[in-house]
Amino acid sequence: MQAIIDHINRYRQQHIDDLIEFVKIPSISCSSEHKLEVERCARFLAAKMREAGLSHAEVIPTAGHPVVYGEWLGAPGRPTMLIYGHYDVQPVEPLDLWQSPPFEPSLRGENLYGRGTIDDKGQVYVHLKAIEAYFKARNSLPLNLKFIVEGEEEIGSEHLAAFLLEHRHRLDADVCVISDTPMLDKGVPSICYGLRGLTYMEVEVRGPRSDLHSGSFGGTVANPAQVLAQLIVKLKDVRGRLKIPGFYDKVVAISDQERSNLASLPFREKEFLELTGSPKLTGETGYSTLERLWARPTLDVNGLVSGHTGEGAKTIIPGWALAKISMRLVPHQDPDEIAELFTRYVLKSAPRTVRVEVRKLSAGRGFLAPYDHPAFQAAIRSLEKGFGRRAVFIREGGSIPFVGTIHDILQKPCILLGFGLPDENSHAPNERLNLDNYHQGIISVAHLYDELARLNWA
Amino acid sequence: MQAIIDHINRYRQQHIDDLIEFVKIPSISCSSEHKLEVERCARFLAAKMREAGLSHAEVIPTAGHPVVYGEWLGAPGRPTMLIYGHYDVQPVEPLDLWQSPPFEPSLRGENLYGRGTIDDKGQVYVHLKAIEAYFKARNSLPLNLKFIVEGEEEIGSEHLAAFLLEHRHRLDADVCVISDTPMLDKGVPSICYGLRGLTYMEVEVRGPRSDLHSGSFGGTVANPAQVLAQLIVKLKDVRGRLKIPGFYDKVVAISDQERSNLASLPFREKEFLELTGSPKLTGETGYSTLERLWARPTLDVNGLVSGHTGEGAKTIIPGWALAKISMRLVPHQDPDEIAELFTRYVLKSAPRTVRVEVRKLSAGRGFLAPYDHPAFQAAIRSLEKGFGRRAVFIREGGSIPFVGTIHDILQKPCILLGFGLPDENSHAPNERLNLDNYHQGIISVAHLYDELARLNWA
Repeated sequence: MQAIIDHINRYRQQHIDDLIEFVKIPSISCSSEHKLEVERCARFLAAKMREAGLSHAEVIPTAGHPVVYGEWLGAPGRPTMLIYGHYDVQPVEPLDLWQSPPFEPSLRGENLYGRGTIDDKGQVYVHLKAIEAYFKARNSLPLNLKFIVEGEEEIGSEHLAAFLLEHRHRLDADVCVISDTPMLDKGVPSICYGLRGLTYMEVEVRGPRSDLHSGSFGGTVANPAQVLAQLIVKLKDVRGRLKIPGFYDKVVAISDQERSNLASLPFREKEFLELTGSPKLTGETGYSTLERLWARPTLDVNGLVSGHTGEGAKTIIPGWALAKISMRLVPHQDPDEIAELFTRYVLKSAPRTVRVEVRKLSAGRGFLAPYDHPAFQAAIRSLEKGFGRRAVFIREGGSIPFVGTIHDILQKPCILLGFGLPDENSHAPNERLNLDNYHQGIISVAHLYDELARLNWA
Repeated sequence: MQAIIDHINRYRQQHIDDLIEFVKIPSISCSSEHKLEVERCARFLAAKMREAGLSHAEVIPTAGHPVVYGEWLGAPGRPTMLIYGHYDVQPVEPLDLWQSPPFEPSLRGENLYGRGTIDDKGQVYVHLKAIEAYFKARNSLPLNLKFIVEGEEEIGSEHLAAFLLEHRHRLDADVCVISDTPMLDKGVPSICYGLRGLTYMEVEVRGPRSDLHSGSFGGTVANPAQVLAQLIVKLKDVRGRLKIPGFYDKVVAISDQERSNLASLPFREKEFLELTGSPKLTGETGYSTLERLWARPTLDVNGLVSGHTGEGAKTIIPGWALAKISMRLVPHQDPDEIAELFTRYVLKSAPRTVRVEVRKLSAGRGFLAPYDHPAFQAAIRSLEKGFGRRAVFIREGGSIPFVGTIHDILQKPCILLGFGLPDENSHAPNERLNLDNYHQGIISVAHLYDELARLNWA
């Protein structure tokens, strides 16, 4: 191992320079203008996989953006690990809030700034550089490796499930490692064992045929914006619980053991509040902030629009009002079933003075893994070697559609081992990557490959 | 009188052709692009006043669009009448819903189509053509006449109050006639004795510093869009009454006499519902549709905006949410006091998990006139001569800022005598003027001048 770690330490700066090249490619998946850049990014990454030492790497088309797939199967009889990441990035608006251009990566202090530095190009490169170190120092890996990097994570991984099903035999593995989650805090290596799911809905309320003069009609017809407000308010009670019948039926309760684990984490609530910029934290009665964030479902209005939204006063009763409403789900809530329950409840709550339409925009399942498999102990040991501190077990409030799907297909442990920090602005301006975490991450996963290879997988 | 009526009948088609020239000028007051057209329209109208026979007409600048003022004071010892109208028009969007271009007036069936045909250019021309008939047939008017036509009615008459105060002595009169209101129905001449006032507010709810990722933060901070929905819902109870303390304190109750008058009007509720396009009518419990519309205050959300309003799913907790909210007021509610009560109530209702700001955008008083002055009987007789049917007394749900102000200044009867129909799309595409109403309106106001001149004004 020492030769590999020495290599990683010696090429610390080179690893940063190489990442900068990757970040420079504006692979914004939601922007059709950037389609060619997304494709260029995929080809670039496949080439880098081959340069790092993988025996095979290719760009595989899908109905959307392509998947990059690389592999090295030169360790017959040894276990096989599947690594997941994504090479697409979020859009960059509002551009004027960036202190340096998003696609001209900039080193400032202990961070590298740029879109995708942490989400997820930096984390893809953590693995790529560990792989490279193995091949440079030893010309082989200690286990078989498959590396899948998709280009649609930031737009809901629409074509990923079909891709995984089509290539399920090729992707077969003993363990899956996903690096796309944050650490609890700086210096606190973290293994994530739970993700929330998502059901995203759109509610449209239509009243008058078109906008009406509020003088000539005000007081005699239902106002779609006000009915929409009523429908939104009816979704939650004063304790912050959703009022949709059946919504909590399949929610896995938080065990006492998990509660005490979450309570013991070095979570700094004050810093978390400062990160939000809100006046105070709030949420479902009877739960701590981390429980609300990781282990409880919730509902947020993501957008509202109705009538006159420009400057000044326009005296109309809007013809229609629309809300985007999404629910973060926990195991074992079924996102499609939740969409149905939501739809039924909203339609039932709506008065007959308007017409209401409810549409499902997207749905993805949550994920909750038992973490008693020996692979998790291997991960703990690896992170301790990389970071000098014992890892904690955390959950995540967000969603990674890949994880639930691959877990269903493989029925093998999925280890979410991420190197982001909560304040690294992954979907915001001035996204950054802490360079210590990048370096210690590379060392950690190099140890992880070795640790996983040594386990008894029989 | 007969010579005058003969003239009006003989020139029926000419009056339409002349109006078409006036409608062709796109005097859209809210559009800075149209500023020169608004000014051209004012000059055009002043010239037409002189051509009609007024001894003096001028375009008077204000801080906004100019006022057109004309007069004829050739009847010393006789009463003086002040006529009000406006030459500015609403914007025309959405253009694709117009069946003929808004500024290329088009005759179809019994209507003239075009922006401003009914609101209010056609009604200004009702008076102009009656005046012209007097001068053509008799070379004089039976009373002194002042004619004020403003250019900012459609944008809240912002500079009108200052103008009226500055020119109060010049505008002095015994009676004021305003033609900018609808008739109750086709063939039902109507005199309006009440208008609602208006208080227009803006409520902004701010939560997180900027939009947050709904996965990484959902469930732990208040969502501004949901808080805004709560604030909106708290404004009204289930009976449709506003919950703002003090809101109803100064509302003039509907008398039994007025109730029975309103109930006796030939109001066709089914047609009114069809006009709205809503599934059904609704409103404050315990009041009829006309009472809700004319004699009861109400509140409408005029616009809503927050977070992601485009297509698709963006998983954010919006940083802020904004609502435009206006209240239609009845006498004697004070619009500025209502703004204060509204602000206090909303701020008190707001949770401490967000920051809330409330702003007043505009405010105008309602108007309610006793209609026992002999001038109203004169109006009744005139309308019967023009339309062959006895006029009804109605109120209006909308507001005309001029009326309350001029009534305060003159302390003289204000007669709202309008010739529009409820379905003539005054603020919508395909605005139109019924040509019978135009013609019968000209005959009616010609009689009105004569009737008013005969009253004992001592």
